[in-house]
Amino acid sequence: MLHPADPAFAALLAARLPPGRVRTPEPRHLEEPRGRWHGQGGCLALPRSTAEVATIVAACAAARVGIVPWGGGTGLVGGQVAGPGPAPVILSLERMTAVRGIWPAENVLIVEAGATLADVQAAAEGAGRRFPLSLASEGSATIGGNLATNAGGTAVLRYGNARDLCLGVEAVLADGSVLHGLKRLRKDNTGYDLRHLLIGSEGTLGIITAAALRLVPPPAAEGAALMVVPGPAAALDLLALAQGRLAGLVTGFELMHRTGLEFLAQTMPDIRQPFAVPPEWFVLVDLGLPEGLDPAAALEGLYAAAAEQGLVGDGLIASSAAQRSAFWALREAIPLANRKVGAVSSHDISLPLSAIAGFIPRATAALAELGDWRINCFGHLGDGNLHFNVFPAPGRTRAAHDHQRAAVMACVYDLVHAMGGSISAEHGVGRLKAGDLERYGDPARLAAMRAIKAALDPCGILNPGAVLRNAGGDICEG
Amino acid sequence: MLHPADPAFAALLAARLPPGRVRTPEPRHLEEPRGRWHGQGGCLALPRSTAEVATIVAACAAARVGIVPWGGGTGLVGGQVAGPGPAPVILSLERMTAVRGIWPAENVLIVEAGATLADVQAAAEGAGRRFPLSLASEGSATIGGNLATNAGGTAVLRYGNARDLCLGVEAVLADGSVLHGLKRLRKDNTGYDLRHLLIGSEGTLGIITAAALRLVPPPAAEGAALMVVPGPAAALDLLALAQGRLAGLVTGFELMHRTGLEFLAQTMPDIRQPFAVPPEWFVLVDLGLPEGLDPAAALEGLYAAAAEQGLVGDGLIASSAAQRSAFWALREAIPLANRKVGAVSSHDISLPLSAIAGFIPRATAALAELGDWRINCFGHLGDGNLHFNVFPAPGRTRAAHDHQRAAVMACVYDLVHAMGGSISAEHGVGRLKAGDLERYGDPARLAAMRAIKAALDPCGILNPGAVLRNAGGDICEG
Repeated sequence: MLHPADPAFAALLAARLPPGRVRTPEPRHLEEPRGRWHGQGGCLALPRSTAEVATIVAACAAARVGIVPWGGGTGLVGGQVAGPGPAPVILSLERMTAVRGIWPAENVLIVEAGATLADVQAAAEGAGRRFPLSLASEGSATIGGNLATNAGGTAVLRYGNARDLCLGVEAVLADGSVLHGLKRLRKDNTGYDLRHLLIGSEGTLGIITAAALRLVPPPAAEGAALMVVPGPAAALDLLALAQGRLAGLVTGFELMHRTGLEFLAQTMPDIRQPFAVPPEWFVLVDLGLPEGLDPAAALEGLYAAAAEQGLVGDGLIASSAAQRSAFWALREAIPLANRKVGAVSSHDISLPLSAIAGFIPRATAALAELGDWRINCFGHLGDGNLHFNVFPAPGRTRAAHDHQRAAVMACVYDLVHAMGGSISAEHGVGRLKAGDLERYGDPARLAAMRAIKAALDPCGILNPGAVLRNAGGDICEG
Repeated sequence: MLHPADPAFAALLAARLPPGRVRTPEPRHLEEPRGRWHGQGGCLALPRSTAEVATIVAACAAARVGIVPWGGGTGLVGGQVAGPGPAPVILSLERMTAVRGIWPAENVLIVEAGATLADVQAAAEGAGRRFPLSLASEGSATIGGNLATNAGGTAVLRYGNARDLCLGVEAVLADGSVLHGLKRLRKDNTGYDLRHLLIGSEGTLGIITAAALRLVPPPAAEGAALMVVPGPAAALDLLALAQGRLAGLVTGFELMHRTGLEFLAQTMPDIRQPFAVPPEWFVLVDLGLPEGLDPAAALEGLYAAAAEQGLVGDGLIASSAAQRSAFWALREAIPLANRKVGAVSSHDISLPLSAIAGFIPRATAALAELGDWRINCFGHLGDGNLHFNVFPAPGRTRAAHDHQRAAVMACVYDLVHAMGGSISAEHGVGRLKAGDLERYGDPARLAAMRAIKAALDPCGILNPGAVLRNAGGDICEG
C-alpha cells in the first residue's frame, strides 16, 4: 500500500534538495487536454538534474510514496493525472531542458527530458539537421513524454515512432538508481534492450531524464498534394503506388473525411477550405526528395499514374512552401475542430492496412445500431492508424450521450480487436485504457508485463494506476 | 540448480510429443563457426509447431532442465552452444519453416522461426517485395536466430537492424505459455514492448516461434561504387555528403582496408581484385533509388562532389548488376578470407561515428605494445560498426598467440568502452562476451537485466549461461 505525499513527506523531500524544488502543484499539473479527469498531487517536485530526480525517487521508494511523472501535460489517455488513492508526488521534468550535446556529423543530439519537442526540432534545425518526430502538440509536449508514450504523429511512415528515433536513454529506476544509456550508437547488442522497454512504458518502469536522439539530413526538396480519392480502399492503393514509385521518400500520408471539413467550417471559419465542393474522402501526400527530383513533378507523375487506375479524382499540388504548410495546417486543425465540437468518444486505433477499408463501414454500421452519430474518421493512413471519432448528431451535445460512451467504445474496440488491430495506436494506455488492456490484451503478454513491473518497481511507486491497474505493492513490505 | 536432460527426461519428452521429435543431437548442433567451443546436449528436440515448443518448454520448466535454442548455428559468440553444467535440451526450430502469410499490399510477411533468412528474402521477392535484412550467413541463419540476436548486416544504414524490421513476435515463455504477438501493425502502444525485449535477448527470456516482418518495395534502380578514400575520416565525410545529397537512399556504406585485399589474394586467389594497386582504405557505397534517378549518374555526381573536397582518389562505378554483385561478393568474401588466415581475436564493435577516425590509430598503437600484428579493420561504417580483427604477423599462427588473446581483447574493449562504444555491435553477447558485459556494462542496467531475467525465467532454464552468467535458479525451488 502506498502512502500519501503529505506535508511531512514534502518537507522531508525539500530538505534533501536545493531550495525551490518542492512546491504546490499548479492547476495545469492536474488537468488534461480533454477535460475528462482532474488529477491530484500531494506536492510538486521540480528537479534540475538527474541526480535530483534520483534523490526524489529514492525518497519516494523509501517512504512508499507514488510518483506521477509529468512532461508537457498533453497526453490524451490520462497517464499524467493521478487517480484516486494516496496523493502522489508530481514529478515534473520541466526544468530539465538542456541540450547536452549535438553531433551533426553523427546525426545525433542528446537532450534532457523536459525540452519540448519543438525545442528539439529547433536545435536540430540549427545544426542543419532535422528531428523528424512531428505532432500537433509539439509546442508543449516534451521529449521525455514523447518517449514515455512512444509518440507517433505525422511522419511515422518514413521515420518511425518516437522509439525508432531514440538511440539511448538515461533514466532513474524505481530504486533511485540511474541507468546510464546515452550511447550515440546505431548498433549495440549488449544484452536486453532496456531503452525499448522504458520507451512506451508511460513512466511506470522508470523516469527518462535524457535521451540520445537520431537526427536526419533534411530532404533537398519537399512537396505535398491533396488528392481526392473514391474511398479508403483507393487511398490504400494510392499509398502502395506512391511507395512503389518513391520507395522511402513518402513522408506523410494522411486520410481525411468530409466531416472534418464540415467541423472546420463550423468551428474555425477563418481556415480556407481547399475544395469548392468538399469531397467525401481525400488524402494529404507529403514527399521529401533528394537532389535531382522535383516534388511537383513527382506529385504530378503520381497523380497521373493514379488517375489512370481510377484512384484519384480532383487534386491540388502545393506550388509553394506556404501552400504545403497550409495543407498541413488544415490537417492539424481537424483535432482542434473536433475538440470544439465535442466527441462522444475518440478512438486512436490501428489496423492491418488491408483491414481498413472493411473496418470503416463495419464500424459505422455497428455504431448506427446504438444511435445517430456523426463520425470523423481521419488519421495516419500510411501507418494504419485511424482516429475514428464519434460525435453527437447536429444539435445534440456530448453530455447527452455520456451514458452511451462505454457502449460506443466497446463497439469500436470489439471490432478493432476482432480484425487484428490495436485499441491504442499512438496515444498509449494511461488510465483511460488500463481496463481495455485487461479486456483485449493477450494473457501471456499481460502476465509478462506484470512480472516485469513487479521486478523493476516492486512497491509500485512509479505512475501508479497507469497502464497496469493494481500493479506492485503486493510483494513489497512497507 | 538445473537438472540434466538425461535419457529418462528424453523419454518423458518423447512420450508427450508425436513420434520423431526427440533425437540425439547431430555434430552440427554442437559446433560453432569459429571452432572455439564444442557444445553439449542431452537430447535434441525438433518441434513442428508452436504448441509442441510449448510442450517442450513446459516439460523442461517442470523438470528444471535447461534449453539451448538452436537456429542455423551461425552465431559467432557461442550463444547456441551449451557450456559446462547439466546437459540441456537442444531445441532446434529447423522444422518450423512455414510462411504463414504474406500481405504484399501491407508490406508484411509472417513466417516461422526456423525459416532461413534466404528463404524469407525469397518469399518476399516472390511477392514483389523485399525483406531487406542481409548478411553473409543468410543461407543458413534462421529468422528466429536473426531476431534472437538482433542481427545487423549490410543494409542497416537504410533499413535498420533485425528489430527494426519486426512488427511482432509469437514466442514461448519460460513457463510454457505462448505470447501471441503476431500483429501486422505499424503502431501499437498498448503497454510494454515485449517484442523488443525478446529481440536481442538471445533466447534467454523466451523462444521466438514466428514473426511478423516488415517488407519494403524494392527500389526502382540500384547501383554501387567502390571509392578509394584517404582514410576513415574522409570516408565519414563522404558518408555525410552522400546522405545529404541522397537522404534515405544510401543502402550500404562499407569500409574496407588493404589487409582485406591481401588476405583475399592469399586465400582466395580466384576472386578478381578491383584495383591494380590495392589502396589502403576504400568504401563500397550502395544506392537504391526511386523512379527518375539514375544510379550511375547519382554515383558520378557524388564522386565528383567528393573529389572536389578531396575525399576520394580512385573510384569504380558498377556499370551492371553483375558488377554491383561482384563488389558485394568482394566485401562478403573478406570474413571468409579472415577465417582462413585465422584471427587471434575478432572484435565486433561500434563507436560514435565521430570517434571512429580517432579509434583506429589509437587501438592500433595500443595493440602494437602487445606484439606484432596484422589488423584487418573493415565493416559497416555507416552504422559506426567496425570488425576490428587482429591477426598474427606473417608466418605465425593464431595458436602461437593464444596466451595473448585475452590481453588483446581487453586492449581493444577498454578503448572502445572509454570512447563511448559498444563491445558487441551486432553479434550479441552469447557466452563469449558474458564476462565482458559484467565488466563494461552499466551497473543499473545489469541489475535491471537480472531482475527481468529472474521475473520471466525464475528457474533459469532458457539458454543458461548466455548473456547473463549465473542467472536464475536462486529463487526457484527445484
